[in-house]
Amino acid sequence: NVAGYGLGSQTRAISVEALKSSDTFPRRHNSATPEDQIKMSQSCGFDNLDSLVDATVPKSIRIQSMKFSKFDEGLTESQMIEHMQKLASMNKVYKSFIGMGYYNTHVPPVILRNIMENPGWYTQYTPYQAEIAQGRLESLLNFQTMITDLTGLPMSNASLLDEGTAAAEAMAMCNNIQKGKKKTFIIASNCHPQTIDICITRAGGFDLKVVVSDLKDIDYKSGDVCGVLVQYPGTEGEVLDYGEFIKNAHANGVKVVMASDLLALTMLKPPGELGADIVIGSAQRFGVPMGYGGPHAAFLATSQEYKRMMPGRIIGLSVDSSGKPALRVAMQTREQHIRRDKATSNICTAQALLANMSAMYAVYHGPEGLRTIGQRVHGLAGTFAHGLKKLGTVEVQGLPFFDTVKVKCADAHVIADAAYKSEMNLRIVDPNTITVSFDETTTLEDVDKLFKVFAGGKPVSFTAASIAEEVQTVIPSGLVRESPYLTHPIFNTCHTEHELLRYIHRLQSRDLSLCHSMIPLGSCTMKLNATTEMMPVTWPSFTDIHPFVPADQAQGYQEMFNNLGDLLCTITGFDSFSLQPNAGAAGEYAGLMVIRAYHKARGDHHRNVCIIPVSAHGTNPATAAMCGMKIVAVGTDAKGNINIEELRKAAEAHRDNLSTLMVTYPSTHGVYEEGIDEICKIIHENGGQVYMDGANMNAQVGLTSPGFIGADVCHLNLHKTFCIPHGGGGPGMGPIGVKKHLAPFLPSHPVISTGGIPAPEKAQPLGTIAAAPWGSALILPISYAYIAMMGSKGLTDASKKAILNANYMAKRLENHYPVLFRGVNGTVAHEFIIDLRGFKNTAGIEPEDVAKRLMDYGFHGPTMSWPVPGTLMIEPTESESREELDRYCDALISIREEIAQIEKGKADIHNNVLKGAPHPPSLLMGDTWTKPYSREYAAYPAPWLRFAKFWPVTGRVDNVYGDRNLVCTLLPVSQVAEEQAAATA
Amino acid sequence: NVAGYGLGSQTRAISVEALKSSDTFPRRHNSATPEDQIKMSQSCGFDNLDSLVDATVPKSIRIQSMKFSKFDEGLTESQMIEHMQKLASMNKVYKSFIGMGYYNTHVPPVILRNIMENPGWYTQYTPYQAEIAQGRLESLLNFQTMITDLTGLPMSNASLLDEGTAAAEAMAMCNNIQKGKKKTFIIASNCHPQTIDICITRAGGFDLKVVVSDLKDIDYKSGDVCGVLVQYPGTEGEVLDYGEFIKNAHANGVKVVMASDLLALTMLKPPGELGADIVIGSAQRFGVPMGYGGPHAAFLATSQEYKRMMPGRIIGLSVDSSGKPALRVAMQTREQHIRRDKATSNICTAQALLANMSAMYAVYHGPEGLRTIGQRVHGLAGTFAHGLKKLGTVEVQGLPFFDTVKVKCADAHVIADAAYKSEMNLRIVDPNTITVSFDETTTLEDVDKLFKVFAGGKPVSFTAASIAEEVQTVIPSGLVRESPYLTHPIFNTCHTEHELLRYIHRLQSRDLSLCHSMIPLGSCTMKLNATTEMMPVTWPSFTDIHPFVPADQAQGYQEMFNNLGDLLCTITGFDSFSLQPNAGAAGEYAGLMVIRAYHKARGDHHRNVCIIPVSAHGTNPATAAMCGMKIVAVGTDAKGNINIEELRKAAEAHRDNLSTLMVTYPSTHGVYEEGIDEICKIIHENGGQVYMDGANMNAQVGLTSPGFIGADVCHLNLHKTFCIPHGGGGPGMGPIGVKKHLAPFLPSHPVISTGGIPAPEKAQPLGTIAAAPWGSALILPISYAYIAMMGSKGLTDASKKAILNANYMAKRLENHYPVLFRGVNGTVAHEFIIDLRGFKNTAGIEPEDVAKRLMDYGFHGPTMSWPVPGTLMIEPTESESREELDRYCDALISIREEIAQIEKGKADIHNNVLKGAPHPPSLLMGDTWTKPYSREYAAYPAPWLRFAKFWPVTGRVDNVYGDRNLVCTLLPVSQVAEEQAAATA
Ligand SMILES: Cc1ncc(COP(=O)(O)O)c(C=O)c1O
Ligand SMILES: Cc1ncc(COP(=O)(O)O)c(C=O)c1O
Ligand SMILES: O=C([O-])O
Repeated sequence: NVAGYGLGSQTRAISVEALKSSDTFPRRHNSATPEDQIKMSQSCGFDNLDSLVDATVPKSIRIQSMKFSKFDEGLTESQMIEHMQKLASMNKVYKSFIGMGYYNTHVPPVILRNIMENPGWYTQYTPYQAEIAQGRLESLLNFQTMITDLTGLPMSNASLLDEGTAAAEAMAMCNNIQKGKKKTFIIASNCHPQTIDICITRAGGFDLKVVVSDLKDIDYKSGDVCGVLVQYPGTEGEVLDYGEFIKNAHANGVKVVMASDLLALTMLKPPGELGADIVIGSAQRFGVPMGYGGPHAAFLATSQEYKRMMPGRIIGLSVDSSGKPALRVAMQTREQHIRRDKATSNICTAQALLANMSAMYAVYHGPEGLRTIGQRVHGLAGTFAHGLKKLGTVEVQGLPFFDTVKVKCADAHVIADAAYKSEMNLRIVDPNTITVSFDETTTLEDVDKLFKVFAGGKPVSFTAASIAEEVQTVIPSGLVRESPYLTHPIFNTCHTEHELLRYIHRLQSRDLSLCHSMIPLGSCTMKLNATTEMMPVTWPSFTDIHPFVPADQAQGYQEMFNNLGDLLCTITGFDSFSLQPNAGAAGEYAGLMVIRAYHKARGDHHRNVCIIPVSAHGTNPATAAMCGMKIVAVGTDAKGNINIEELRKAAEAHRDNLSTLMVTYPSTHGVYEEGIDEICKIIHENGGQVYMDGANMNAQVGLTSPGFIGADVCHLNLHKTFCIPHGGGGPGMGPIGVKKHLAPFLPSHPVISTGGIPAPEKAQPLGTIAAAPWGSALILPISYAYIAMMGSKGLTDASKKAILNANYMAKRLENHYPVLFRGVNGTVAHEFIIDLRGFKNTAGIEPEDVAKRLMDYGFHGPTMSWPVPGTLMIEPTESESREELDRYCDALISIREEIAQIEKGKADIHNNVLKGAPHPPSLLMGDTWTKPYSREYAAYPAPWLRFAKFWPVTGRVDNVYGDRNLVCTLLPVSQVAEEQAAATA
Repeated sequence: NVAGYGLGSQTRAISVEALKSSDTFPRRHNSATPEDQIKMSQSCGFDNLDSLVDATVPKSIRIQSMKFSKFDEGLTESQMIEHMQKLASMNKVYKSFIGMGYYNTHVPPVILRNIMENPGWYTQYTPYQAEIAQGRLESLLNFQTMITDLTGLPMSNASLLDEGTAAAEAMAMCNNIQKGKKKTFIIASNCHPQTIDICITRAGGFDLKVVVSDLKDIDYKSGDVCGVLVQYPGTEGEVLDYGEFIKNAHANGVKVVMASDLLALTMLKPPGELGADIVIGSAQRFGVPMGYGGPHAAFLATSQEYKRMMPGRIIGLSVDSSGKPALRVAMQTREQHIRRDKATSNICTAQALLANMSAMYAVYHGPEGLRTIGQRVHGLAGTFAHGLKKLGTVEVQGLPFFDTVKVKCADAHVIADAAYKSEMNLRIVDPNTITVSFDETTTLEDVDKLFKVFAGGKPVSFTAASIAEEVQTVIPSGLVRESPYLTHPIFNTCHTEHELLRYIHRLQSRDLSLCHSMIPLGSCTMKLNATTEMMPVTWPSFTDIHPFVPADQAQGYQEMFNNLGDLLCTITGFDSFSLQPNAGAAGEYAGLMVIRAYHKARGDHHRNVCIIPVSAHGTNPATAAMCGMKIVAVGTDAKGNINIEELRKAAEAHRDNLSTLMVTYPSTHGVYEEGIDEICKIIHENGGQVYMDGANMNAQVGLTSPGFIGADVCHLNLHKTFCIPHGGGGPGMGPIGVKKHLAPFLPSHPVISTGGIPAPEKAQPLGTIAAAPWGSALILPISYAYIAMMGSKGLTDASKKAILNANYMAKRLENHYPVLFRGVNGTVAHEFIIDLRGFKNTAGIEPEDVAKRLMDYGFHGPTMSWPVPGTLMIEPTESESREELDRYCDALISIREEIAQIEKGKADIHNNVLKGAPHPPSLLMGDTWTKPYSREYAAYPAPWLRFAKFWPVTGRVDNVYGDRNLVCTLLPVSQVAEEQAAATA
């Protein structure tokens, strides 16, 4: 009674296409469906997406198509993971004893999973909108407090790119402190080689002379010394008392910068107590994996005196509209974007995510936990040294040490080779010198293995455990740390996993991230950071590799670099790439230095004029200034385009000294300028090179390219176009691509020599610009996976859909807000500017009011008042669905209606729902309500908010108050109690 | 000028202890610091923790110490990860073509990271407190909708343990529908072997006769058939039209159960349309890894007629206190805990987390995406069959198929061995029959590899791609699916990663989890689910293994099972363990069946009386009923202890037929009963066996043990004591330990034979109780890592601190609420009961009011009205810090004060802050406020809430309304729009 077969059946042929692996990626990243595309294009007045794009991108610069030699079709998500597993298996994870600023660490799993692997922490933007960023602001304040406590200096910023560039920033500060009048900077030879090289490179632009000198040979007789840099402990391990040294420097009017190590400072007298003026270093070993070089958070601490000269972002305390304590980025007015050509630093994107990890590591371990780790590392080093003395095969150095033991031996390579065989890496200082650095992950068994290596075949009659009790560790008594640190309650309460888990989630819940809604920041390209891209970033075969291992241990990384270099060359139309710069601004710096080196190599030492349109990002002039260039500004016309005639005149006027044009494309005004090819031609004809700022690359990929347009060099913000998440203010990566003639000058590295990818025939590197040879190698898999999964078509579609989404939004908004600039056919590029300037007069409303009110709608505001004051710049990206774009437009249209109410006199010009925004729950459900508008109107201005609402936790934060009463660390306990009492009262 | 060495220095000897690896785990899990311990013990009236424990645990049952043969000292977190990596590397991940209910699947990475690896989803409790569980309730409603749509039947539950037990549950339903009057259940031989065996085992207790029969031989002449189970598609792949078969069964008064496959149902006519009464199956291949057997969500769907007979939890729609739609667990009154001895199912913990993953998989792919996957899998199978026909080496079966191709061949083992060599697993059905099942992860290249295998050395002149176009797939036309499915918007909007990411986080933000605060549910042991324990669970070497692979491919798993078996034996004092049961209740069932088999083996067929104290959990009598036992209840005395004299009388009265005592220890009243050893003695003396319910094992580990006390068998809820997270209502694991005499009877498995660990000398297995040989193997690493990292001392400390925390809270609360039961020295065990019965009269307050008000304080209520109506049972666990315990106590004390206000007449008895709780923001910031108390008092009753507050998203949910108007799937779109309009109005 079972029927079935033969009943009559329906047959159907199969296509091979339908049998291919189905977990394709582009449809998960690019949002608009085919139907959406048509509808949205039509709403913009075009039949389809291609006509819209054709009308938007100038024909003269349009490339026919892009083709990759690998991955052209795009891998599926599972194929990508498989490919990355293959690369991972080509990396060899040996135990590192190399030291030199990079140490293995136990990333506490609760931090790994809940911060590093959590989009709720890694997708946020820089915390400029303080009211929806109180979580990471608190964590960054913890970071600053940790740094000030451990270094013994009262002011810290919220991270720098790496230890080497932090030293260079400190050098620039010294120059600045001395008002540029003392032009020598001395570096003690006991600093890490990469630190020295970065400073030497960076000094060029400041016209500083760097003298590298043995400590004992340092003198200040010239009277021309602005500062001196020493390391504590030294790169080869020695722990010296710099007390007298510093007094002497100060007596000579010289500022002292100390590079230091946070773990050592748990046991050693802090630099601040020794008298140092500036302390820099890396927080890497506090719970951030080595990652073959980065990303990690560097720090810089100084005294109150120099706080307004500090580079980077500083988090500070202020109050909100109800007078309750609230955090925000302090002293934004001192950021490089307003200093422009007077800038001494160009840092913008920093290392927020990694600073947060390090701060949480300190929160989890607390002062006692950290001291225990420090003592253990120190004890292992002592035991090792003691064992070596017993063995007698080598000669152990005589100076006190913290974690690094230096030995003299007959043949360093023989010992290092034996260590490799045991899967251990040592540092070869010179043919007769080795250092061995210990870290949190070193075990007693490792020390025993080292004994075997150093015994060179002889039997070892003891173990580390058996001799430990004989060891007397030695810290010079004057250098024993006596001052307490991390006494604030936050460092003394979350030592169980549950407590830390909840603290992390409590902070997370205060921050708006891409997990909540779109963050359409113009010029920032906040797009999807896909999980498949992120997964390999925390695989041990990528995380646990020291940047200075022999290349054969990092073949997986190297293959990825080579592939990525090729792919980026195809995408940009360039011939070679450097993966060294750790952010966009660092890329700019590297790029201009390449151009500088090129001119110099041709004998054009005098070419130092840099033309920069007024619409440029602040980092452009800041970078040019750091390269010692003379900046010539050119204006824009009423349509937002560079004034070509003015440019031509400038170029011709400076033709003899013209070095560079810095230009962003599409322009920061959100327009594909038609004259860009002509602009490039003018510069070249006048002997200049064209530097393209690649921040807007998301509008170019597959449609045009910097190389095709005529640029000579360009940086890519991988944390924009290429999917590295913003991490709440970093990490980022800013690799630069160059035309063939510039490839020889790409940066190298003093420890692991490197250069362009693919490699040029000859190399004449400009120097070193980051501490690690390939910058933040650990996050390169993100961009690599993005490109490889999208394939050439997926990427081109992404650019098209980014343009579509921007035009769709501009169209929906244009009847409510003036859209400031457009291309010749009336379209915008991948972003656009809406003009709010009129509302100042009609309703007393400024962009900030709109941005804060957007928070009540569950949204992060667009880029505010840049590049044009009084406007908002919106960049939706291709990853946002039409529904999401519509919600954002609905919110802005609804806010326009709220403004209209003021204009019509129906709402009070000083006391309205925009001025009152954002509205935190504490306000909305207060027993008293004195606003002239209703609670529900304040809280639920759009229907979707009834189903999901993100709640800002503070009212509007008062920036002026905070800057007047600058507090940039956690308050002492007593004061906290007071504040809390006040808050709950 | 540099001083340093020789300055005079401070020397310090090193201890070996201080050099050991520092990332130890117990201090991260166990909260109380040494200082806390003293203070807290003293507040309970004891000098220190040990005296408190000594006074609490009866001396007679106290063990001196516990010692493990492995891991006794406890591994550090990094050592644990290393050990798991070693085990992982011992598993071989071959491609599976085995089928049989388990298929590889692409877990969408966004689901993997944001659900499976996210404590914000995996740490929640079962959603009994609906107002703080709306997120997962919505997702589970999506699951139910997906099941009803695909099966074509209108009612679904929110998951069962696995496909095999789901079939057994359906069998019990058939028995029930027929009121127990027809005692034969027929199973077609085309069902999976494990499904058949589980039903056979389960039938015993219901006194049902199972007949396994070829479909064509089935007849109902006896008139005694209650139901029939068929599979669609069949286990060997055939797709049959059951339309006539079902008509015939129905004509004979027989109910039809169909086991089916969700992916096949995207293409095949749904069972509901064919007339099936019940449909069961597994949702595993919808985005849940195979995990060597589980956990996965099984489903059961049926018609409206039988909805009140369905086992398991069902989510339904209702309204909240403002009349807005809100979800909750429907018909809780039908759960087994009130049916007790009339129960036909004992399921409690289910598979919520996995159901949510599967539902999200459907949300991500949508109906078109799922159909595409189905067609692709079907196409690959067709291409394979076509190629085999071309090859001519084997004979392809004649029946239509969906994903599984059956072939007859000369020697199945030769082919299977060749496949192994290519790292592929096939199913050997018999020496001349092989089946090959395709799934989402199969590629064209895999098919080519299979062709090579089947060609047996001969060259293959074609590829899958080259022949694909020739293939005509064949689905019988009567079986082609025509009805639409998943038409609801939620299945048609989140197809990009950003949309799904946000949907997942939106739901997450509605649920209170351990990421927010302690969840002190009595009898549930909601402790830390540490990240290190969770990490290996998503490693591919553990996830991607089919449960029926040859043992040599799963050596890593097998070693873990053996180690875990040993460790659990040491912990429990037993001799052998079965890792098969998938939850506590399943463990109970397995345990009683072991006892039943034991008695039978001794000729004691008549022993069927089960004594159960009235204080027992509802699953105890339900389980006994399912085993066909006669339940005899014994009461408790005023102190909450079992009335020993009553027990003795009962045992003696039933001495001839006594089978078992089921007893929980410490008692469900939170007391270590002094008489427990005597109780065991009484039972043994009367010929019975002692079954211990191990739910409260957290109070025993290292202090006593079931074996030591005198129990013969016990289940462990690994999802309580041993750290498997609750997942919002599952998964769980309920392995059972037994004394030597019972070990032979432990369950085996029809496909992969298994039994006790360590293995007893001989085996006489009771049958099969779960679909996979080692149950939910994938989550065993969690418990394993917990035990191995804690070591014997850490575990013992955990028990002590669990007792300490409970006593500390009881002490703080006793002046505010009566503490119901205590041990002889006035202490409580690891949990305690506070009595609220008095407030009914004095203030009209019931436990529910307190639980709902706790939500306003950011807390999940304790276990409500169980085991004693009108009370709350609090179990803090060792993982909670004193600060957290204090906050919870503060909240309860503050609520007591709120009750006092009613008692004093200062608050209205009907309209007060408890009756109004919880207070969602929509209410609190409504324009109108008519409550007699203030908004701030409602929202911020404790100071800490000003700094972090979890907001319930609905007001109190109306259970009665929902049960009267039962809606258990998503509403059709039109109705949704109406509801939304109503909600925003
Ligand atoms: C146009 C432009 N150039 C340069 C930068 C600097 O990039 P980064 O923040 O990575 O240093 C930005 C950053 O927003 C930018 O928008
Ligand atoms: C005492 C007791 N026994 C048995 C069970 C059932 O366990 P499971 O939910 O794992 O089936 C429970 C669950 O809460 C319980 O508390
Ligand atoms: O992501 C949240 O923890 O809500």
